[in-house]
Amino acid sequence: MDLRPLLTESDTKILFVIADGLGGIDSEGRGTELEAARTPNLDRLASQGATGLTYPVAPGITPGSGPGHLALFGYDPVEHDIGRGVLTALGIDFDLKPGDVAARGNFCTVNDDGEVTDRRAGRIDSQESTRLVKMLRDIRLDDVEIYVEPVKEHRFLLVLRSKKEAISAALDDTDPHRTAVAPRQPHAREEKSQETARAVSEFLAQAQEILAKEEPANMVLLRGFAQLPQLASLQERYGLNGCALAGYPMYRGIARLLGMKVEDCGPDLDSEIEALRAVWSDHNFLFLHFKDTDSRGEDGDFDGKVAAIEELDRVIPRMMELEPDVVVVTGDHSTPSAMASHSWHPVPVLIRAKTCRVDGVNVFGETACAGGGLGHLRAKHLMTLALAHAGRLRKFGA
Amino acid sequence: MDLRPLLTESDTKILFVIADGLGGIDSEGRGTELEAARTPNLDRLASQGATGLTYPVAPGITPGSGPGHLALFGYDPVEHDIGRGVLTALGIDFDLKPGDVAARGNFCTVNDDGEVTDRRAGRIDSQESTRLVKMLRDIRLDDVEIYVEPVKEHRFLLVLRSKKEAISAALDDTDPHRTAVAPRQPHAREEKSQETARAVSEFLAQAQEILAKEEPANMVLLRGFAQLPQLASLQERYGLNGCALAGYPMYRGIARLLGMKVEDCGPDLDSEIEALRAVWSDHNFLFLHFKDTDSRGEDGDFDGKVAAIEELDRVIPRMMELEPDVVVVTGDHSTPSAMASHSWHPVPVLIRAKTCRVDGVNVFGETACAGGGLGHLRAKHLMTLALAHAGRLRKFGA
Repeated sequence: MDLRPLLTESDTKILFVIADGLGGIDSEGRGTELEAARTPNLDRLASQGATGLTYPVAPGITPGSGPGHLALFGYDPVEHDIGRGVLTALGIDFDLKPGDVAARGNFCTVNDDGEVTDRRAGRIDSQESTRLVKMLRDIRLDDVEIYVEPVKEHRFLLVLRSKKEAISAALDDTDPHRTAVAPRQPHAREEKSQETARAVSEFLAQAQEILAKEEPANMVLLRGFAQLPQLASLQERYGLNGCALAGYPMYRGIARLLGMKVEDCGPDLDSEIEALRAVWSDHNFLFLHFKDTDSRGEDGDFDGKVAAIEELDRVIPRMMELEPDVVVVTGDHSTPSAMASHSWHPVPVLIRAKTCRVDGVNVFGETACAGGGLGHLRAKHLMTLALAHAGRLRKFGA
Repeated sequence: MDLRPLLTESDTKILFVIADGLGGIDSEGRGTELEAARTPNLDRLASQGATGLTYPVAPGITPGSGPGHLALFGYDPVEHDIGRGVLTALGIDFDLKPGDVAARGNFCTVNDDGEVTDRRAGRIDSQESTRLVKMLRDIRLDDVEIYVEPVKEHRFLLVLRSKKEAISAALDDTDPHRTAVAPRQPHAREEKSQETARAVSEFLAQAQEILAKEEPANMVLLRGFAQLPQLASLQERYGLNGCALAGYPMYRGIARLLGMKVEDCGPDLDSEIEALRAVWSDHNFLFLHFKDTDSRGEDGDFDGKVAAIEELDRVIPRMMELEPDVVVVTGDHSTPSAMASHSWHPVPVLIRAKTCRVDGVNVFGETACAGGGLGHLRAKHLMTLALAHAGRLRKFGA
């Protein structure tokens, strides 16, 4: 629901501590990663607050980073979409402008008949990919500037910026998402994306020529054409002056999309906390993002994820010294190390504030949270709960 | 949400074991029927999986068999409606065609002033009802073929099949749903149902004449005019090739509506399981329906329902021998024997799959499930969860 009519001023501060991919499953008979970890500080927060489990999107749906974070900030992730192209740009700190059309690219291998034999060109390494990207930068199009940027391994970013009228991203993928067929021609889904389709066709023709002699990466596939979404800022929606402490570009980018200030800091918790302390007095909503829980989960490294969680636990007291009025600790999705990928499992959450209804849960873990006072809820409701505990929401109706 | 963009191929198999009316209440101080039953096999599945409670429609809403089953298969039961007339046809294996208008009929008693004195004609028995139905089959209408079929006791099915243009089921009930008033004239709710209204009027006039001398069933009431709904099949929605093992016509009919193959089998568990084994290799979604839990609940027979649950428990190992990748055990609604009817109470559910977050619940019962890792969820989300555990859903968003 629209919270704007309910907003009221307060000098309270809200801190969101987001451990990426926090949730897990018990694959080794010693509980989930969070349950196996020694977390006295998180457990204390849980015992002082209220706990539960969140569904980022819906039961059974595995969220990408975009939907996972939009939900945390109270934006319905099904209504609001950050396209793959845009997310790729955010992920490498590319300065995407409104109107730019961004796509995620893969170097791929095609045979003599032009059919895709490997959609990732043998997962060529980043060095090779960077060399090829530099070659693609020679491509020139009429009326459209192009930017090609290496991402990781076989991945790259393509951005089209029109020099004339506005262009649209309503294009189907050229990636056929399978092998033994030719890449698709760019197909405009609407009248106003036909100019984009022509530009992409021309880009692909030139790319094919440039890469013809390369091996194994002799062609490219494009997918997730997207433009910066129109998202109301945290200020507009909640009257919050937000700041993000995030070591990874992707999360900085999402925060910027929502109008948060983005503080420069390294990817390690120490730099993030130092930055948090530095900006504390200037903001009333602070978003601290911790990546390692997800990375170790994606690596399939149970013990590594346990260690990452314990590392987060150790710095909790340094955050609490700042005396936030409301603290939310949760993740944007689960990343069980047994699956080495994002998953649909609901995510443990704790809220600690003076006005919490303490629920008797005194360990922060999935099993305990399943019986917590917040129950199972959609992640998009967390922001409303945080605003409520922060004394920032008036009564609804008379 | 539309799952089609997320679907991905897999050779996994999903088994839904639906114990009709499974949920209960504790009316004898020994727990619910499920809790009073000795269920070592179901308890083992619960301990290996995740548990919760489902709302088939919404809290406080008691579902009929149609909505209860639609929800289980992931169809929002409020958006999608199987009308009473259609459900009556499905319940007696009547071969309803697209475009047919079906209605549920009651034999009733009217007085000399034409006012209804008994809406069920003293609940005449099935034999008497069948005799009257045969008389009604003499009715002839212009342009519309009619089919009259006995159901149970005072109930019958009326089907209108147009010989000319399409007819519509948008008609109000002729059943006034109370006594001391005359049956209502069939009223067309829209232009295109006026032809149907005329045909039904003519049917009623002739029925009145035919039954005039009968006692107590000297008139009929019609309600729930309906046509086969347009429902996307499981194949279209989920890419699943489904098969139903169900001894009762109603559930076979619902399965057929959703594009499942329906395997011929008796109403007893042994025939169902034999049939399940026979079709196992040909399908990736199997729906086994067990009716006795509901029947004994409707009888108000606590011990009978306990025995039915124990009977189901005994055959669980024979299903597990087939090594389904995902097993869901639940009901389509609750039928507490203390109420001798369907009820709104949420329904215990367990999901067992390799990727489950085991939740510490090791008995399958309402109280234990209330604290389970799945929480309280809408039944319509179970199918999404099953697809996720079956590795049949890609990540949502980038």
